[in-house]
Amino acid sequence: MTEIETLAQRAKAAAATLRTAKPEMRADALRRMAGNLEKCRDRLLAANAADMADAARLPEAFRKRLRVDDKVFSYMEKRLREAAALPDPVGRILEKRTMPGGLVVKRVAVPIGVIAMIYEARPNVTADAAAVALKSGNAVILKGGSEAMRSNLVLAEAMRAAVADAGLPADAIQMVPTSDRAAVAELLKQDKYIDLVIPRGGKSLIRAIEEGTRIPVLKHYDGICHQYVAADADPEMAARIIANSKCQNVAVCNALETLLVDAAAPETTVERIVAALRKNGVELRGCERFRKLVPDALPATEADWDTEYLAPVLSVRIVDGVEEAAKHIAEHGSGHTDGIITSSPELAERFVGLVDSASVLVNASTRISGGGDYGMGAVVGISTDRLHARGPVGPEQLCTYKYVAVGNGNLRE
Amino acid sequence: MTEIETLAQRAKAAAATLRTAKPEMRADALRRMAGNLEKCRDRLLAANAADMADAARLPEAFRKRLRVDDKVFSYMEKRLREAAALPDPVGRILEKRTMPGGLVVKRVAVPIGVIAMIYEARPNVTADAAAVALKSGNAVILKGGSEAMRSNLVLAEAMRAAVADAGLPADAIQMVPTSDRAAVAELLKQDKYIDLVIPRGGKSLIRAIEEGTRIPVLKHYDGICHQYVAADADPEMAARIIANSKCQNVAVCNALETLLVDAAAPETTVERIVAALRKNGVELRGCERFRKLVPDALPATEADWDTEYLAPVLSVRIVDGVEEAAKHIAEHGSGHTDGIITSSPELAERFVGLVDSASVLVNASTRISGGGDYGMGAVVGISTDRLHARGPVGPEQLCTYKYVAVGNGNLRE
Repeated sequence: MTEIETLAQRAKAAAATLRTAKPEMRADALRRMAGNLEKCRDRLLAANAADMADAARLPEAFRKRLRVDDKVFSYMEKRLREAAALPDPVGRILEKRTMPGGLVVKRVAVPIGVIAMIYEARPNVTADAAAVALKSGNAVILKGGSEAMRSNLVLAEAMRAAVADAGLPADAIQMVPTSDRAAVAELLKQDKYIDLVIPRGGKSLIRAIEEGTRIPVLKHYDGICHQYVAADADPEMAARIIANSKCQNVAVCNALETLLVDAAAPETTVERIVAALRKNGVELRGCERFRKLVPDALPATEADWDTEYLAPVLSVRIVDGVEEAAKHIAEHGSGHTDGIITSSPELAERFVGLVDSASVLVNASTRISGGGDYGMGAVVGISTDRLHARGPVGPEQLCTYKYVAVGNGNLRE
Repeated sequence: MTEIETLAQRAKAAAATLRTAKPEMRADALRRMAGNLEKCRDRLLAANAADMADAARLPEAFRKRLRVDDKVFSYMEKRLREAAALPDPVGRILEKRTMPGGLVVKRVAVPIGVIAMIYEARPNVTADAAAVALKSGNAVILKGGSEAMRSNLVLAEAMRAAVADAGLPADAIQMVPTSDRAAVAELLKQDKYIDLVIPRGGKSLIRAIEEGTRIPVLKHYDGICHQYVAADADPEMAARIIANSKCQNVAVCNALETLLVDAAAPETTVERIVAALRKNGVELRGCERFRKLVPDALPATEADWDTEYLAPVLSVRIVDGVEEAAKHIAEHGSGHTDGIITSSPELAERFVGLVDSASVLVNASTRISGGGDYGMGAVVGISTDRLHARGPVGPEQLCTYKYVAVGNGNLRE
């Protein structure tokens, strides 16, 4: 038995215990995890400093994800405490009906089982994934980007100890202790023990994972997000939303990548938006029609419409009406988050009907698409898949269900 | 472009139309499908007679599934009318909350898109799958077992005409018109157009499908179903439930395959159950302890505990208590349907907590585990997967969701 197989087998045994553990024990473990995080603060920051030093030459967007500073630290701790306080997702009665023959049929939320999470070099995801998995009664196997290995090992150790202190199996949380690529391949073979793989990161990595496993995969591709500014959009609101969508954090999946402006929008609306973006140092790449309005914008190539920049760059296209906007989104978007800015509820409704993305927004920044702003608490990411869970993946999304049918001798006639 | 690729592309175009079609149009199409079925009755029965003639040498369980007699015909028609009358699953508001900043977040049910259904030579599944897919706003590509090809082509033609008459694209329902195995391989490559594959049938077929595609797969393995007769079970109820579980239809996935009897159950309970089974001609294969009670039962081998007979054969094991019963089920079951017969609500609750199957039953026949007895109407089958949908898969299960968030200029701080 390989090391990875042993690890997967232990996770399955832990999952069987977790499945029947009382909600209060899991909440207790989460509170202890937050407490242990506080205790290991200095060690974590030192480990992260070492990870950051090794990553000195990597791109700034990458380093931004890797860094654990005071803000990220507080955020991790807060998420663990929030997860402890959230209502328990396990055992929820999702449906209940009594059939004519007296059979009482209930659909009850239960944990999925063992979840393997493969993700970028982003230590806060380690804490979030452990929190969400434990909250939902699942065992989790974590495989973070190797550049974050030191940070992750400190985090995992602290969280495992907390789980054990709460009287639950420490193997509910396990970190793959090697940056060896073969470990991922080996992990993907463990369909006997692992119920779900959640990969986050580059498209090529995720594709390779999908092709290399029989375990169901819940994909977290990055996002090519759009805003469509309708002709009747409030210019000031439009400028604020677009600037926030693009600039608040350029390195994340729900940052804006393409702006669609209706051809009938007043020139002053376009000017205000452009001014807000320029103030934030955003490079604009426009279609021909946009460059007639803003001559010093760079010309956009066909590739721009399909590019997730994760950088202060924005492609801009002038479109004729909501249908053309929706068509552009269907052809070039990634189904992650797409919004409209309009003062017409009817037009908003039309857009919402036409656009088939995980999140469709009206008069809001793409950056609010996520677990926190949706009131879901900690999430493991934002699914771009259509099945099981779409959009933010929190504790409820890491449950499945079973039917419980209680009869009085009911037969099939 | 291959024939299959063209077919998949057409399904995707049809799905885009269906997604925004009014519920009433889909209900109208379903009623017309039932009407057209009635009109093609003679042609269908003739086509099925030809299919049956070709299948003369195949096993009786197989032929039973293939046959369309008056009963099966009425059943198909009834299911279509029931589907038309069911509440519309698309557009349901699954959750709604208003966040402190005024953001209104809704989770709304939407169709999955294009579903490919690969199934056995069982014409009633053709009608059920088309009904469930259309009800939920999905386009469906049907690939039924080749032995049912004549029956299926008559059915598909009738249903497509009905969809077109209702003003919807006929390509919402398409039948792969060849029994060529290469067609399935080609279908599984169409991840650009197909959102979900639902295979039913043998384990080896389903495994091959999972390994051969990047499209998400919702598996419908067959079932190794158990009943556990507790010491306090009402003997008469136990005998009735066990006989119905095993004998009402031996050829289906929710038929009983293994009986677990508590060692503390009175001998008279065992006698009653055995008498009821023998009356129905069931061959018994028991463990050593069972054979002490029933000496003329055949000895069960280890392989028996893992066998889905789909025949009038039942394996029987004596167990010591509910934990041992649950352990046997975890080791040998397929997570489909498992039940307890007891007069103790506490013991029932204990069993329900320990057994992690898609359906866990109390004092009811395994045969009632399904869409009809659960009040879900037509289903495409019973999923043995843990993700997205578990147990019966009806119109609600063939939906996904999107988040719709309506703001007033909400930004991420």
